[in-house]
Formats: sequence, structure tokens, C-alpha cells
Amino acid sequence: MNCSVARTLEIVGEWWTMLIIREAFFGIRRFDDMQRRLGIARNVLAARLQMLVENGILERRLYQERPERYEYRLTEKGLDLYPALMSLMRWGDRWTAGEAGPPVVLNHTLCDHLTEPVLSCSHCGEPLRPREVRAEPGPGGAVVPPRSGAAAG
Amino acid sequence: MNCSVARTLEIVGEWWTMLIIREAFFGIRRFDDMQRRLGIARNVLAARLQMLVENGILERRLYQERPERYEYRLTEKGLDLYPALMSLMRWGDRWTAGEAGPPVVLNHTLCDHLTEPVLSCSHCGEPLRPREVRAEPGPGGAVVPPRSGAAAG
Repeated sequence: MNCSVARTLEIVGEWWTMLIIREAFFGIRRFDDMQRRLGIARNVLAARLQMLVENGILERRLYQERPERYEYRLTEKGLDLYPALMSLMRWGDRWTAGEAGPPVVLNHTLCDHLTEPVLSCSHCGEPLRPREVRAEPGPGGAVVPPRSGAAAG
Repeated sequence: MNCSVARTLEIVGEWWTMLIIREAFFGIRRFDDMQRRLGIARNVLAARLQMLVENGILERRLYQERPERYEYRLTEKGLDLYPALMSLMRWGDRWTAGEAGPPVVLNHTLCDHLTEPVLSCSHCGEPLRPREVRAEPGPGGAVVPPRSGAAAG
């Protein structure tokens, strides 16, 4: 499918996969720590980690020699999933957290304030709203529906 | 699991589901149009649409009376998935599109320039980078790892 959403979901569009990536952003790097925190079956975790290494999202590094122990760190490609992960979290905070409120809040250390991620335009800096964005065929040549972008609602 | 990412993925974390939402943002509202564009089995599409309606992401509206025909429109809750969808698309453009380039580009009609979505701080407006964001326990009471946020890489 000639679509960057579809291609992304082929790699990270599986429930456990995105939660493993969340753990990596939380600084959890070791198999046993991830396994315990996620309550995931060891064989499932091993398979997902291997897939993420093969896709260049995590890299596996030796941190102990006897016995050999490895940890998993986000690559540049993995770190670049941060906006997607934050956007999924923010939606969940707003629509699924209920009266208890968000399980986690975010402090932006650069300005030292609590922050909510906002998706902004790289040109003018204003928040991107679906009705103010028009999808157009790019160099990769997707077929775009005529009313795309202004469409929703 | 007390995590907004996990809760979000429980609703939209299935491959077809996010592509159906993408179609809705493209302005595709009718069952037959979605089915043809996605090449999805009719029973799978019907089940996903029903789930999205039950979860308040799409609403089903009668647009023709004889025979009865319905279309699907994004609700406010559905429209709020825009940042997540755009972030997944942008990652795919960067890491999976290859030399052909992005299948789709985005024109921000507010400033009339091509745009790339940037995740920004709601307080200071600067781009949010994972090393400059610290996760803290929120009112919903997650257990946050001590080194969270500054962790990656």
C-alpha cells in the first residue's frame, strides 16, 4: 500500500511493539525489566525485540561479558517515533483516562513547565488542524482523494 | 494497564483501524468507497466500523432513505486522533518511503506552505525532544521509572 501510515503500522502497529518502544523511552533497556513491567510472555518479548532490532528501531548492545548480557537502546530511527508515541498518549489522556486524570504528566525541562504536546506547522508554527491541511500527491505518487484534508467532520 | 498509550492502542491499535481513520480524514465516508480503496474484506470493515462507532470515534448517519444508506463521520474524539495519525505518517515518510519520497505532502492552508508536522510544547512552543521531557506521576497515578524521559539513546 503506497501510504506512509500503512508502512509505519507494518513495523510498529502491533500493541506490544509500541509499548516496548514506550518502555525504551522510559529508559528501560533490559529484557528482564521490560518483561516484568509489561507482564509480557518472554517469547513474545524476544520476538518483538528482534523485529525492532532488525528494523533498525532498537540496537542491541553488550553491557556485560560473563555471562553475556545485552541491552536495547533506541536508534535515531527509534527516537523519531517520539511524536507518534506522545500523540497516542495525549489522546489516551484526554479520552480514556476518565476522572482519575492522566497517569503520567510531562515536564518540559527546557522551559520547566508542564507541557501538552501540540502538533504544529513547520512553516508558521500554528497548531495543525485537520480542516486547515490539504493532502496533495507527493513525489512518491499517492492517489489523493479530491476533497482530502478539508474532509473531516 | 494504567497507561494512556496502552488504552489508546486498545481502541485504535489495530492495523486496519488506523487506516479506516485515515480514510475518514481523507473525506471517505461510505462503506463501499472505503472497501474499494482499502481492499479490505467487507466483514472486517463492517466489524471495525462498528467498533469505531461504539467507541465514539465515528458516528453513523443516514444519508439516503430508500434504500437506507449510512455514512461514517469523525466525531470530536475521532478528529482528535489527527496528531497521532500525522505523526505516524511523518515517520513513515522519513523512514520507509525511500528514494521515491513521500506519497503525500501536506499544504497548510492557513499559511499556504507545505508543512511537516512538528510536536511542540504547549507552554513555550519549542519542539519537544525526548531528552528534554521528564515524565512524572500524574493524578491518574502511574508508577514512573526514576530516569524516565531523559532516558533514550
